[in-house]
Amino acid sequence: MFQNFDVTASADKGKERTDALRARFDDLGIDGFFVPRADRYQGEYVPASDARLAWMTGFTGSAGIALILRTTAHVFVDGRYTTQVREQVDTQVFSPEDLIATPPSKWLKEHGGKGWRLGVDPWLHTISAIRELEKAADEIGASIIRLEANPVDAIWTDRPADPTGAVAIQPSRYAGPIPAEKVKRIKESIRESGAQAAILADPSSVAWTFNIRGNDVPHTPHPLCTAILSCDGRDTVFIDSRKLDRETTAYLTQLADLREPAQLTDALAALGEAKTAILVDPALTAARIGDVITAHGGELIEKADPARLPRAEKNAVEQEGSRSAHRRDGAAMVTFLAWLDAQKPGTVDEIEAVKELENARRHTGERLQMPLKDISFETISGAGPHGAIIHYRVNTDTNRTLQPGELYLVDSGGQYVDGTTDITRTVAIGAAGESERRFFTLVLKGMITISMQRFPEGTRGVDIDPLARFALWNAGADYAHGTGHGVGAYLSVHEGPQSISRRGMQELKPGMIVSNEPGYYRESAFGIRIENLVLVQEPENVQGGDKPMLGFETLTLCPIDRRLIDATLLTDRERDWLNGYHTRVRSELTPLLDDEATLTWLVAATEPISPKVHATE
Amino acid sequence: MFQNFDVTASADKGKERTDALRARFDDLGIDGFFVPRADRYQGEYVPASDARLAWMTGFTGSAGIALILRTTAHVFVDGRYTTQVREQVDTQVFSPEDLIATPPSKWLKEHGGKGWRLGVDPWLHTISAIRELEKAADEIGASIIRLEANPVDAIWTDRPADPTGAVAIQPSRYAGPIPAEKVKRIKESIRESGAQAAILADPSSVAWTFNIRGNDVPHTPHPLCTAILSCDGRDTVFIDSRKLDRETTAYLTQLADLREPAQLTDALAALGEAKTAILVDPALTAARIGDVITAHGGELIEKADPARLPRAEKNAVEQEGSRSAHRRDGAAMVTFLAWLDAQKPGTVDEIEAVKELENARRHTGERLQMPLKDISFETISGAGPHGAIIHYRVNTDTNRTLQPGELYLVDSGGQYVDGTTDITRTVAIGAAGESERRFFTLVLKGMITISMQRFPEGTRGVDIDPLARFALWNAGADYAHGTGHGVGAYLSVHEGPQSISRRGMQELKPGMIVSNEPGYYRESAFGIRIENLVLVQEPENVQGGDKPMLGFETLTLCPIDRRLIDATLLTDRERDWLNGYHTRVRSELTPLLDDEATLTWLVAATEPISPKVHATE
Repeated sequence: MFQNFDVTASADKGKERTDALRARFDDLGIDGFFVPRADRYQGEYVPASDARLAWMTGFTGSAGIALILRTTAHVFVDGRYTTQVREQVDTQVFSPEDLIATPPSKWLKEHGGKGWRLGVDPWLHTISAIRELEKAADEIGASIIRLEANPVDAIWTDRPADPTGAVAIQPSRYAGPIPAEKVKRIKESIRESGAQAAILADPSSVAWTFNIRGNDVPHTPHPLCTAILSCDGRDTVFIDSRKLDRETTAYLTQLADLREPAQLTDALAALGEAKTAILVDPALTAARIGDVITAHGGELIEKADPARLPRAEKNAVEQEGSRSAHRRDGAAMVTFLAWLDAQKPGTVDEIEAVKELENARRHTGERLQMPLKDISFETISGAGPHGAIIHYRVNTDTNRTLQPGELYLVDSGGQYVDGTTDITRTVAIGAAGESERRFFTLVLKGMITISMQRFPEGTRGVDIDPLARFALWNAGADYAHGTGHGVGAYLSVHEGPQSISRRGMQELKPGMIVSNEPGYYRESAFGIRIENLVLVQEPENVQGGDKPMLGFETLTLCPIDRRLIDATLLTDRERDWLNGYHTRVRSELTPLLDDEATLTWLVAATEPISPKVHATE
Repeated sequence: MFQNFDVTASADKGKERTDALRARFDDLGIDGFFVPRADRYQGEYVPASDARLAWMTGFTGSAGIALILRTTAHVFVDGRYTTQVREQVDTQVFSPEDLIATPPSKWLKEHGGKGWRLGVDPWLHTISAIRELEKAADEIGASIIRLEANPVDAIWTDRPADPTGAVAIQPSRYAGPIPAEKVKRIKESIRESGAQAAILADPSSVAWTFNIRGNDVPHTPHPLCTAILSCDGRDTVFIDSRKLDRETTAYLTQLADLREPAQLTDALAALGEAKTAILVDPALTAARIGDVITAHGGELIEKADPARLPRAEKNAVEQEGSRSAHRRDGAAMVTFLAWLDAQKPGTVDEIEAVKELENARRHTGERLQMPLKDISFETISGAGPHGAIIHYRVNTDTNRTLQPGELYLVDSGGQYVDGTTDITRTVAIGAAGESERRFFTLVLKGMITISMQRFPEGTRGVDIDPLARFALWNAGADYAHGTGHGVGAYLSVHEGPQSISRRGMQELKPGMIVSNEPGYYRESAFGIRIENLVLVQEPENVQGGDKPMLGFETLTLCPIDRRLIDATLLTDRERDWLNGYHTRVRSELTPLLDDEATLTWLVAATEPISPKVHATE
């Protein structure tokens, strides 16, 4: 089982650990210290060895930062974790703060004192993040002190060892071009930016560029490592050699010099001394990396990670892999949903459902000889009111039964060597209410509108986000999250720079994969989300038009619960899209299924919907 | 007649005038000089005394800049003026350049020489614009030289006098709150920004704040003037006293100290010497203003013009005035369209149509005792292929007859004391083709979608712009302009900060007026645009929803040509909206019309449309 359901809160150590940290403040010449969720690699998941925030506070959410001062301590979390943080931390020790409304920089301006010296570990904050802290500190006459060593590590005596997950080569039949070709394209953009070298600070960028995968953190199969690409010389990958066997060592040595992570600072110093202009992405790169370069005379060219855009524009092989992964994942989802429908309403709980789904993915992968390598994130399995908690994580304390008359929302994904999936379905347990069906259909209208929308070159995610919302807006409703995020190719399930959201300023380019997941959440009542992954297609001419248009190919293959659809709310075009999608789901998944009951379920679940009444919206 | 149809090109003086300017370069120590379209007030229209660009080059477009170098000269214009500039300037003297693809700053980087010294008149460039030029010059080792006097004025011996249009008080029954209330709100935001004073560099901001209007430039009824608002003392308005009679002098003197424009620099210097922190909007304020303040020790706080947002959020009195103005303007439009329909196709030309429309506005205004004060911009009157030229201006050379089978596009507006209007209608002359009807209906779908869309607080223009495009996008078409711009209250027809466009990052707030004008343009064939002005409404609860939603009230009242609508392409909701709109147009305009033939036309033009066939889009 990749998922666990433990209640991991351990609030009882907060007092002792903050006091131990405070005892070091005088020696360090500081009045406070920041403990962020991040590790050196600034990724979404951190290894156990870097779970300093959880160790210090008890808070295990995927984003947050603590500030421990001499007499008070504060833990900043976003809206997803408002409840969780109060359950997990000792609120006598830590005041929960709002990470979005009052992030540390803003909090400092409101509550900080003149002369305060606040320590940071510059490995654990990006260049941009530390700049924001420093700007706030400047304004109130405080200062940010970059420490040489992390004082938490000094008191965390049983800190786990760094991870040494084995590195695997990602073969060309799944990766596409060989690294030399990718490196060539990346170096062109490095040169264009005026730099002679670039830091690949994001391990997913290193993994994609060199066609390797790893096993250091949960759910994201990249090895923790850093690379320096040099336009004029050899490239270097800084990676723990214990992760490499003879084959992967030989493979990587052909492509780059291999060094231990501890040697990174010396290499940066050498580049600095050679007065090298180095491209760094300030939003992804640890402040320490920038500091070492500039302290030794190097120049920082601050630009987006040059591997980020090529990585987002999936090549033909990655696209084909993703299609395969989605067929397989669809077969697993159908197996799970058919099983769920066969259970008597009121007999399955949220944890059981997660286990059944993970098993369906595992068995389908084994049967089709492409094993499930991991789940791509912890499954969100929310029955009834839990469906309205956008990032709900079920544990043994919160686990509840799927009751008749409720909606059940399940958001999950798989990591396969040929692709990463992410799918949400909301299904009826027994008979659903009118309001549930109405809002389900309004959400579906948004999902379908995005699915079938064509758009001109230059269109950004921000431009199409509202198309998923306008039916809801007209009904006086909305959802408090973006419509879609980028997805990697057997890499992170959350990948930039593309997104479909209010902040999505990246143009949508052919080959990009994004999620299409509008929702509706009625607090303490029910939640609805319908999510397919879609692939941006090449521009094509449209009959009668004069401008080639891009569009989306839907990758995800799984029925949408017909029992929740009020067909009178769909336009003809929307209904036609849905019926066409279901026809395709049936024909593509049938060959992958061998269980009669599941096949029967699939046929019923993909029957066409007829317009019961003339469309009115 | 407010509009004229002269061919104003005078290309023949370019050589003589550029040479005269060049003869002064050595004395001034420069190798080139920029001649922008702007005057000191950076508005859309400039008085004859400031038409330096036209005088120097012959180019009369509403945006552009020339750069005269020792041996070459360049005139930068945007896509609207690509053809016009080649007709108006002597291309032996001036190379036309692309203002958008290669603005002067970019052109300099590509073509500029090390050591070049390029003169500017710092009154005629904004702080932001000069910064961009200086950045580019820096990169190539050139410099921007701010001249004390404009060398064009030295050679333009018959330059017209500065305008002295009479100032009028805008009475409270049209303006709403008295200036003291407006000033109070503005000063609160000045204080919040950390400044002690602010420059109102935009004459529209001064006009709105002090409830005055003017007559210095065509089509925008503000008086050219500048104000300094001081949080701790008296405010000062810098205005040519010849514009004021005894009444307006007495009125303004109660509100502020009055000074001549020539005294502005001394006042800025004094503020600088008092170490005042002064709010300036770098995008609207002449560089010279910032220079004087900082040269004397003052501090610039760069923020948006503090009157801009309050001015955009129309108060209840302004809203009511706008409704009245739109009823009157609708009556004029209906009078014109009824007349046009009564003419035999092929007998009316574009200029005749403009004259008839302006007369309809004038006579309707007189009859309803609210005279037309001006047209709000030069009417775009485009028949057939001319409709595809987005900013077409008819003159005696281009004038053509409205031929049977063509579309006719007319985009116009009126300035009345109670409001500013802007309306576009596209009508069939004789029978229209299938393609014309199809695209007209697709454009209409976009216009209707915006009209009836609800949206949550926080929605920006960028978020709804695509709703006007998605039907066109699906048909392989688009339009190369924003969907809407802000509109003033008896002020400029183009007003910020709100817009409905790719760049519209301003949240839409209740009381804002924006245009809703999608289009479609098939080059050399036909053009379609349908434009209504809409007013952002207060958020309201929606039946069955859980979030109050904003929406639009449509202000413009004029039939949309039913002959051009393919009803099979409309959804039921779209058709219902259209029929409801036409019912309202009929009932609101009927009392304002007295001509039987016009009333008969109106009844026919507002008959409901029935679904001939079941809706398919």
